[in-house]
Amino acid sequence: MTVPAPLVRRLAVVGAGLIGGSLCLAARSRGLAQRVAVIERDAAALAEASRRGLAHEASADPGAARGADLVVLAVPVGAMGEAAAAVAPHLAEGTVVTDVGSVKGAVLAAVVPALPFPARFVPGHPIAGRERSGAAAADADLFEGALVVLTPEPRTDPACATAVRALWAGAGGRVLTMDAAEHDRVFAAVSHLPHVVAYALVGALLDLEADQGPLVRFSAGGLRDFTRIAQSDPIMWRDICLANREPLLKSLARFRHVLGALEAQIAAGDAAGLLQALARAREARRGMSS
Amino acid sequence: MTVPAPLVRRLAVVGAGLIGGSLCLAARSRGLAQRVAVIERDAAALAEASRRGLAHEASADPGAARGADLVVLAVPVGAMGEAAAAVAPHLAEGTVVTDVGSVKGAVLAAVVPALPFPARFVPGHPIAGRERSGAAAADADLFEGALVVLTPEPRTDPACATAVRALWAGAGGRVLTMDAAEHDRVFAAVSHLPHVVAYALVGALLDLEADQGPLVRFSAGGLRDFTRIAQSDPIMWRDICLANREPLLKSLARFRHVLGALEAQIAAGDAAGLLQALARAREARRGMSS
Repeated sequence: MTVPAPLVRRLAVVGAGLIGGSLCLAARSRGLAQRVAVIERDAAALAEASRRGLAHEASADPGAARGADLVVLAVPVGAMGEAAAAVAPHLAEGTVVTDVGSVKGAVLAAVVPALPFPARFVPGHPIAGRERSGAAAADADLFEGALVVLTPEPRTDPACATAVRALWAGAGGRVLTMDAAEHDRVFAAVSHLPHVVAYALVGALLDLEADQGPLVRFSAGGLRDFTRIAQSDPIMWRDICLANREPLLKSLARFRHVLGALEAQIAAGDAAGLLQALARAREARRGMSS
Repeated sequence: MTVPAPLVRRLAVVGAGLIGGSLCLAARSRGLAQRVAVIERDAAALAEASRRGLAHEASADPGAARGADLVVLAVPVGAMGEAAAAVAPHLAEGTVVTDVGSVKGAVLAAVVPALPFPARFVPGHPIAGRERSGAAAADADLFEGALVVLTPEPRTDPACATAVRALWAGAGGRVLTMDAAEHDRVFAAVSHLPHVVAYALVGALLDLEADQGPLVRFSAGGLRDFTRIAQSDPIMWRDICLANREPLLKSLARFRHVLGALEAQIAAGDAAGLLQALARAREARRGMSS
């Protein structure tokens, strides 16, 4: 019996948050890399990364990326350009770079100008968010069964895309490829819109509570789901909203239109129209993968 | 060791849906009544109620309520008046009547004129909805730990309220009392609003999918929660929306206001304002009971 060779000799992950920290753990526990370095400039997060032993090396210094075969940028979308610029001087000609941002167009625009070899950058997005965030929540099995979308550009070196694909497949992900603009339209609708709606709903409840007294303590199933979603990291979601502004505003406009139609049916007492509108939602269940 | 006497000799439940069916099962398995009858006019639901042995007697005839000490109306809010009128001729002077409707003002208005002894009607609302509905989903433990709100009126006989409270406490519920109008304001905000928003979100996704191709299959955590909520029984929710129209429209207006503010911050690229608005949602978690 032979032990499979690790996919990568040296892996460097920039950002010890939920995604970056989980990828470090997955890489170590699944033998995806011989050596893993995590780079984190926040002192508390760095200390937590060290405490949990996320990587062989935990450092605040972007120079820890030196010698890496594969660098993963795992910081909030709004910090990607800066993170790329910080590691850029330490990249070798053969280093593959990828990211985990939830928006791809804006990340491409921010990261590509910062990198010495843009053809070796493979944009990626593991769909594995949780409401808990940070190194403390990192989990070696976070990506087991998760969808991971890669959005290579025409200029992207196919060998680099293959390396990134192998990393995520090794971590348990189901990897697929999409166009970056298509990715941003899809996730504006299925992820960014629901998050903004959940934040708005919880905000409205807090406003109503200020007016009319206790509400949240009476919450039942429905509200709990919204409240949980709205616990997601506000910095990460601020960045996503701003980086994917146009597709998100388009999805929001459609949502407001549909909500307005329901509201008008309720106001008018249109029982038949309202029933038809509510029953329609059952169609969506059929399209879900699980 | 003595076996406690059942709380009720004869219990009749009108409606073999999730709530009615679960109450029948709870009453039988916990010894809350000596004899349980379920009345259901839909043939398929009645057959399912018989098949599952929800009650000692399953009948389409409202006359099966004859001799009951306690009658529970467990039909959609829009059908409460009719259900009350159907059982009214079979009620004895001592019979206590309650309901399980998610809206209390409209149920009071519909039920009270139909009953011979309005002082013996105790409006109630177990907060135990699930997305699965119908007799097939009935569960003896559905009310374990669930909040049950009673909204007795000034005219309500306190002994009747005590009997209804004992039934729900016996089924595992945490019973509390509120004013009916207050109940309707609270649940418009914490339950009816989130459901309408979830239905609208799923409707918007289906619209966007029709325009731009597959979306729902890429759904991640956030959307799944919404989609699940929007699988709730559309007839039940149509009735709730129309019966609680004014408080619901007020909650919807507040939600639209907060959503519009987020949308404006996104459109304007107001990073500081957006972060503040998103971070605020974390306040809500503190107020939740669990």
